[in-house]
Amino acid sequence: MVDVVSQVLKAHPYQAGKPIDELAREFGIDPSKIVKLASNENPLGMSPKARRNALRAVQTSALYPDPNGFDLKASLSRQFDVPQAWITLGAGSNDILELIASAFLTMGRSAVFAQYAFSVYAQATLRTGADGIVVNARDFSHDLDAMNRATRGDTKVIFVANPNNPTGTYLAPDKLETFIACMRSDIVVVLDEAYNEYLAPEFQYDSIAWVKRYPNLIVTRTFSKAYGLAGLRVGYSISSSEVAGFLNRIRPAFNVSSVAQAAAIGALEDQDFREQTFRLNKHGLEQLATGLRKLAIPCLESYGNFVLARFGANTSRVNAYLLRHGIIVRSVDNYGLGDWLRISVGLPDQNELFLRTLERALIGA
Amino acid sequence: MVDVVSQVLKAHPYQAGKPIDELAREFGIDPSKIVKLASNENPLGMSPKARRNALRAVQTSALYPDPNGFDLKASLSRQFDVPQAWITLGAGSNDILELIASAFLTMGRSAVFAQYAFSVYAQATLRTGADGIVVNARDFSHDLDAMNRATRGDTKVIFVANPNNPTGTYLAPDKLETFIACMRSDIVVVLDEAYNEYLAPEFQYDSIAWVKRYPNLIVTRTFSKAYGLAGLRVGYSISSSEVAGFLNRIRPAFNVSSVAQAAAIGALEDQDFREQTFRLNKHGLEQLATGLRKLAIPCLESYGNFVLARFGANTSRVNAYLLRHGIIVRSVDNYGLGDWLRISVGLPDQNELFLRTLERALIGA
Repeated sequence: MVDVVSQVLKAHPYQAGKPIDELAREFGIDPSKIVKLASNENPLGMSPKARRNALRAVQTSALYPDPNGFDLKASLSRQFDVPQAWITLGAGSNDILELIASAFLTMGRSAVFAQYAFSVYAQATLRTGADGIVVNARDFSHDLDAMNRATRGDTKVIFVANPNNPTGTYLAPDKLETFIACMRSDIVVVLDEAYNEYLAPEFQYDSIAWVKRYPNLIVTRTFSKAYGLAGLRVGYSISSSEVAGFLNRIRPAFNVSSVAQAAAIGALEDQDFREQTFRLNKHGLEQLATGLRKLAIPCLESYGNFVLARFGANTSRVNAYLLRHGIIVRSVDNYGLGDWLRISVGLPDQNELFLRTLERALIGA
Repeated sequence: MVDVVSQVLKAHPYQAGKPIDELAREFGIDPSKIVKLASNENPLGMSPKARRNALRAVQTSALYPDPNGFDLKASLSRQFDVPQAWITLGAGSNDILELIASAFLTMGRSAVFAQYAFSVYAQATLRTGADGIVVNARDFSHDLDAMNRATRGDTKVIFVANPNNPTGTYLAPDKLETFIACMRSDIVVVLDEAYNEYLAPEFQYDSIAWVKRYPNLIVTRTFSKAYGLAGLRVGYSISSSEVAGFLNRIRPAFNVSSVAQAAAIGALEDQDFREQTFRLNKHGLEQLATGLRKLAIPCLESYGNFVLARFGANTSRVNAYLLRHGIIVRSVDNYGLGDWLRISVGLPDQNELFLRTLERALIGA
């Protein structure tokens, strides 16, 4: 009888948004008719420059990827004005979160994260055998003071998402910097900025300047959301070169595919696409908020590319109705948010279709 | 001061083959003139069916990959006549080896592997904090009896590669099955078959039948070698559904990109390409063996798509000469094989160019 380490039995596999093909198989729906608003993907797809690079990279993908990601690191270095030695590449920021857990957590250590924070923090922590300390949310957002107080002597990592998924909440930069500045220096602060590109200019802040100031800070970012490369798996972190050196020691050499590296370089070059993405999302958030208000469905103010809306006792019935009608949104039951659904911002027509279908679902309630 | 877990400091990052672009930068060589025989890639590239699928998948890669790899598992299931529940998908078999280490190893446990075996076994083992027990090779091959004797009470994983990289050695199926059959049932036997597709028909064996018989056996395979998809990152394992269930509990949901999943399905469909690959490799192995013999360079008989050749005191000088002349082969110094170089089988012209350049390097010796 094989003998797994105890943490495997405690693991909660990630609950992904239902893929379009899976729904198509289950309900016999034409996949081209299905609208997926479940995984915070970019409804515009990817930048044409990213696509062009990806297609070109396929041609030489019988060769292993560059294990050091030279060209992508050079692009990131130029774009964000940071030394290449500060950068760690991952197969999505998920991969970076796993590397951080492997580097800083093990049995007898602990990590702190917030209730309603991205579920991968708990998953990566538990995989290493470390304890996960969950700190109650305040108004659905991270309670930074309580998180600071919750750290123990054995705490080595604290995860903070800004904006947070699945709640869409936002932490003010001054409070966030104070939190980082006050953190014990042996605790790594992971600032997960997967949704950073969706922040309006007045909410942006310079977290890279913080990396210079706080050697225990790791900022993680992804190409899966605003950059539209979720299917290719690429993300990165920015940290002191010392911390990046630790992560790179345990990083599998070929963790980022050639196609992903090439596409990410193209995505970084396309400022126009990012602006278009931002504008579309801004209007989509307004469209969804207005539509939900008309239907008397409460939702949280979102700083990401999704909204968390409360359907109370109707939640699972509404979700089932939407699925039957080819619309995939995300159940967040696994977050202890069984009364809520998370809806990603789609194209204007998709948002409209969601709202109209939802209206019919509610009439039937 | 951040506080990494102790195993990070012991980690030896993987020494990858030098990428073409890196050599081009270092020596100012036109990249199109460089011949890379360093990473056991398929010199034919990938199957046209794989390429077609990959290009198509790029178009929808703003969406997350199918986290369950439904279509690829269905293809593998048909191809190898195994239930889908036996299959675990990874970003290359490297990723599967890391998952196995995470599932079965931790501080206070140990893994057994052979001297000169694939270096990722040691790396993945050490990352978890477990001990790695290295068993001396016999005639450059795994000494299975000694490996069996080397297991301790805390041993939970034993890694066996057949054929082995970087030595190219092969273990006879009857001996291998006896070894697996006699292994303690709480020890997972990992049979790494990354080079399986290069075995001539008379050396093939039915390891999948062994999975049915031995619930502690995991067979790992990759699309990086004969299938020509190294740059895309995709591999798989076949094991009991119980073991696959454990691996899938800790597997990050999106570990295999959409492009990799699609390309792998295309690669599996193309029997002609695999046969062409096998024939080309067979002739290339003969070409290299004959050429090296003429130059009085000893080499091991190889069952893979590479040869390990002994250059003795000339090794680093020969390697430097080859690099300066645009030919990348692999130093295996990190394996304790400082007198040897590993040369991947290329196209006939590439093999010939290597042999001619080598001849000039040796004349200068």
